[in-house]
Amino acid sequence: MTDPRPDAVLHPEGRINQFVIASHYAVRGTIYIEAQKRKASGKEVIFTNIGNPQSLGQKPITFPRQVISLVTCPQLLEHPDVGKLFPEDAIARAKKYLDNLPGGSGAYQDSRGNMYVRQEVADFIARRDGHPANPEHIFLSDGASPAIQRCLNMLIRDQKDGILLPTPQYPLYSASVALLGGVILGYGLQEEQGWSLSIDNLNEVVADAKERGLTVRALVVINPGNPTGQVLSRENMEEIARWAAVNRVVLLADEVYQTNVYGSRPFISFKKVVTEMGDEGKNVELISFHTVSKGVFGECGRRGGYLEATNIHPGALDQLYKVFSIGLSSNVDGQLMMGLMCNPPKPGDASYEQYEQECDAIFQSLKRRAEMISNAFNALPGVSCQNVEGALYAFPRVRLPEAAVKEAEKKDMGPDLFYCLELLHATGICAVPGSGFGQEEGTFHFRTTILPAEEQMPRVIDLFTSFHKDFLQRFGMPSKM
Amino acid sequence: MTDPRPDAVLHPEGRINQFVIASHYAVRGTIYIEAQKRKASGKEVIFTNIGNPQSLGQKPITFPRQVISLVTCPQLLEHPDVGKLFPEDAIARAKKYLDNLPGGSGAYQDSRGNMYVRQEVADFIARRDGHPANPEHIFLSDGASPAIQRCLNMLIRDQKDGILLPTPQYPLYSASVALLGGVILGYGLQEEQGWSLSIDNLNEVVADAKERGLTVRALVVINPGNPTGQVLSRENMEEIARWAAVNRVVLLADEVYQTNVYGSRPFISFKKVVTEMGDEGKNVELISFHTVSKGVFGECGRRGGYLEATNIHPGALDQLYKVFSIGLSSNVDGQLMMGLMCNPPKPGDASYEQYEQECDAIFQSLKRRAEMISNAFNALPGVSCQNVEGALYAFPRVRLPEAAVKEAEKKDMGPDLFYCLELLHATGICAVPGSGFGQEEGTFHFRTTILPAEEQMPRVIDLFTSFHKDFLQRFGMPSKM
Repeated sequence: MTDPRPDAVLHPEGRINQFVIASHYAVRGTIYIEAQKRKASGKEVIFTNIGNPQSLGQKPITFPRQVISLVTCPQLLEHPDVGKLFPEDAIARAKKYLDNLPGGSGAYQDSRGNMYVRQEVADFIARRDGHPANPEHIFLSDGASPAIQRCLNMLIRDQKDGILLPTPQYPLYSASVALLGGVILGYGLQEEQGWSLSIDNLNEVVADAKERGLTVRALVVINPGNPTGQVLSRENMEEIARWAAVNRVVLLADEVYQTNVYGSRPFISFKKVVTEMGDEGKNVELISFHTVSKGVFGECGRRGGYLEATNIHPGALDQLYKVFSIGLSSNVDGQLMMGLMCNPPKPGDASYEQYEQECDAIFQSLKRRAEMISNAFNALPGVSCQNVEGALYAFPRVRLPEAAVKEAEKKDMGPDLFYCLELLHATGICAVPGSGFGQEEGTFHFRTTILPAEEQMPRVIDLFTSFHKDFLQRFGMPSKM
Repeated sequence: MTDPRPDAVLHPEGRINQFVIASHYAVRGTIYIEAQKRKASGKEVIFTNIGNPQSLGQKPITFPRQVISLVTCPQLLEHPDVGKLFPEDAIARAKKYLDNLPGGSGAYQDSRGNMYVRQEVADFIARRDGHPANPEHIFLSDGASPAIQRCLNMLIRDQKDGILLPTPQYPLYSASVALLGGVILGYGLQEEQGWSLSIDNLNEVVADAKERGLTVRALVVINPGNPTGQVLSRENMEEIARWAAVNRVVLLADEVYQTNVYGSRPFISFKKVVTEMGDEGKNVELISFHTVSKGVFGECGRRGGYLEATNIHPGALDQLYKVFSIGLSSNVDGQLMMGLMCNPPKPGDASYEQYEQECDAIFQSLKRRAEMISNAFNALPGVSCQNVEGALYAFPRVRLPEAAVKEAEKKDMGPDLFYCLELLHATGICAVPGSGFGQEEGTFHFRTTILPAEEQMPRVIDLFTSFHKDFLQRFGMPSKM
């Protein structure tokens, strides 16, 4: 194809910021674009590429939607028939929010978010951890992503600053670090030990980085893991926190899947662990992230999230406030959704039972699906999948036949991408190749969400199973099983 | 004060990204913080520091809120009494959106925004300009700000890349350019010629920049002007567009105040001007921005906005899509608000008359307030204010007495900040010093919005007038009037 505009000022070759060019974002990469084409051609696509529960039919929880609906349209509250359409606790909560939102939901709020909502978040954290939380250290954001990016922006000073990211990791991190001109320092998670984090491994990566003249600035930990689904033990968390303090790196704790825990090991927040470490914990500079997009709410389209800063220098917090203020204010519906997630109906409230039932039904179904999916993958020849203890994904390893690897090479693509494209073309299932998340050299994985509707799951598994068997028939069995 | 954490990894002195430290954001700076303190102490504050209409009592337009309320709570649509609380066209529109939003408003949409809404935006642009618009070139965003920042991120490659910004300008631009490590190249607007843009001035700034070894990458034009309120003539726009093409810079057209035009000169979009320039226009790389936060909607808290790319290289558009995709999706309520602004009720629809009346009432009131406020400033000794032809602000010049300038020096602050702080302390009026927007050396200005409620305006003007007269009595008359 001839270049339609070779002299463009914004030309992708050499005339666009190199960091923009260098950043990759697999979740919406090649596979996603191919899937969109397939969909546009009228064929079925089963989107398991992204944790977007409501796009796969998960129903929103009723109560928070009712409250936001009323806040959006305050004149409803004065209508004599409002009680026919809305329960009384939703009406009361909407009034409470309107009393505490200067200008209502159509006005910019403080750049850190509305104070009433931040207090609801602080109260939630205090209940969860058994330790007080300070709303001045809580900033609301349009989902967790911009909060994470703003923290990375403060941390990355130049191309000599490195950020420790798990391998595999959620590609927001690698894309953002690249975009900000920093260095991605991948530390491997140990697949055969249930994707656990090894301090030895961290030390090796840091030693190597120092040799390259880099300064390590932060350690990102995703717990429960994305895409890997593991839940950290308290012992491991203490070790990690101590390591961060000793090595003088900020600990960035991505805890957006804290509600999505299906196994016997409970979620514990880094805030709690650090607080309970006493004086030693005071040296841990910690920023934790949460969202309304995951959990059982799955309210991705709202873009609600928060960060909580622990042991962060007040001058640094001022700088963070400034960076937030350049973006003016996060969207107020997203802020309210976060408040509603943190402060749900209580026993005795009109909506309490329905709320609990709805949340529990989604949670139990996710738990069943997590098990169904890892069992199904483990039943396939050449595929192994760690137990999905948490989050919304499975990240199975697939041994690919040599002939398939060669076929991929011929097509100038990674073997995992080739596998996922074949899967998409054969079944409509849109999974993301492991290369988008990072994987140990010579191993191949893919990520699927556990989000297809439960009643659809057997069919998805059947489609997958047939595809995989066909694939092995076409290309032969992998040499190492 | 002793440093509470001198060894912090995130320490504001030397251990935070210098570009973060260097960026300033006046609208929420010293004055805003002082105003918050005043408010916390129980005293009245009249916030004229920021274009946040609903925080000052502007009522939201009813129809779009009704639609969003229904989309938020889709079960309302099935309730037998829904017709008592919502008009039929709001119900129909909500159904239309739900049919076209995969997963509803709780799901991530395409990273560029939902296609149905983007088509509504494209149709609006086509009606406005008389030329077709392509939804593939329209990206929805959380307000205009992140769209602007993402474009600047593509443009600024290193510290040798400069962006032409008007002086005075809206500080989002200077803050973002500084944050991205680029060079701010201010070009002066000519106050005495109604804040018009002079090509000679652009040429001077560019010549100087080239001498400094800089590459000029983009020209930001805010039309109608913020904080200056001028509306560009078509002749001037053609000249600017031609200049951008010849000088190989991308034209970034901030047109968020396009509805807020109060004088006889109409708003014309750069898209229309460039399209009608024929082959010459094809060399103009243009990105235009719009929002739901201004106009008569004033829906700041929704964070809805769009960019339209004209003559941008397809490879650059792909890169922009990637940058948007790292942020996943803008908030869906904000997307819908943008769709509703672009596609309002039509004659014959149940809500048409009320919608038109509400919009017109806000518009006429803003127009009256724009005139009241510039007249009031012009009546004060030592103050001159250009006619407010558009936008939501007045940016009067104030001649300050020498004794006041000295007093400010003693307090180690700019004379305009000193004036605004005295104003705040004496009256509760929160205006922003001109230094936050940029002003010609040796001149002093401040920005106020025209947004205090119309019935409150005479009191605000009285407060201001008394303050200013007292100020001159305390410090003497300025030497030059």
